[in-house]
Amino acid sequence: MNTAILSKHDLLNHWLEHRNLTRRTLEKFPEDHLFTFKVDQMRTFADLIKELLSLAVPGLHGIVHHESKPYDHDLPYTNKEELLKAWDEATPQIEKLFLQIPEERFADDYNLFGQYNFPIIHNILYFIDNEIHHRGQGFVYLRLLGIEPPFFWDRSK
Amino acid sequence: MNTAILSKHDLLNHWLEHRNLTRRTLEKFPEDHLFTFKVDQMRTFADLIKELLSLAVPGLHGIVHHESKPYDHDLPYTNKEELLKAWDEATPQIEKLFLQIPEERFADDYNLFGQYNFPIIHNILYFIDNEIHHRGQGFVYLRLLGIEPPFFWDRSK
Repeated sequence: MNTAILSKHDLLNHWLEHRNLTRRTLEKFPEDHLFTFKVDQMRTFADLIKELLSLAVPGLHGIVHHESKPYDHDLPYTNKEELLKAWDEATPQIEKLFLQIPEERFADDYNLFGQYNFPIIHNILYFIDNEIHHRGQGFVYLRLLGIEPPFFWDRSK
Repeated sequence: MNTAILSKHDLLNHWLEHRNLTRRTLEKFPEDHLFTFKVDQMRTFADLIKELLSLAVPGLHGIVHHESKPYDHDLPYTNKEELLKAWDEATPQIEKLFLQIPEERFADDYNLFGQYNFPIIHNILYFIDNEIHHRGQGFVYLRLLGIEPPFFWDRSK
């Protein structure tokens, strides 16, 4: 077989680094705007963060345990502190679950949330891409609020 | 060594599918707003697209030919048709250059544009992540203009 271009640990670290930046973006939001500010028919940044939380750990849990349940974006967080706490609590769970997926399974199809039947590697790339996408939207929200977003390239903790 | 979790061809296809969605996002912009509309201190979507164009082919060219030259985002495109043409002309060049990078080189450091010294896999993930990030911002621009963006999950041509 071919030489691997990306190891499992590299992909995990890549995601965790993106999560550092997303956390920093969340921190930049003023409490009130986080749950109220939105553009046109879009959602608040709090709702986008809830979506990310409702995908990562539940999605990985499903992959690891071969359970395919629907997602639920409607998480019961009502302030910034709770969102940050949930974000931080998800991190070690993401690490633990991710590392339980054997390399051999990444090419296997998995019916994520009972409706997205793709190879596991693409389920996981979707988690990351979707986070980057919504965080990019959060950057514009911050600019609209007159707040400078974090540096896109800074993925440190 | 470990089983590969993502093949070179898979990563290329993943990028090309994202490029389909970015192209569709570009198509949704009205000609005038593409080059004029922006939020606060951000850039127009035309300028963001020029940035993406100035990274992908020149960056891959540098990687393949071991040349490390600075980037130039200031490309001479002044209307939507020219941007779409440049986007489409970049596609086969991306494919051709990407496929010339041997799997073995993806772990090697490369000093992208003479200033970002990281493993080639991370240079390439940056191209993709940066595209997703700016396209996400373009989605908000479209919403601010009262236009519905494409579906994020639709990567077809």
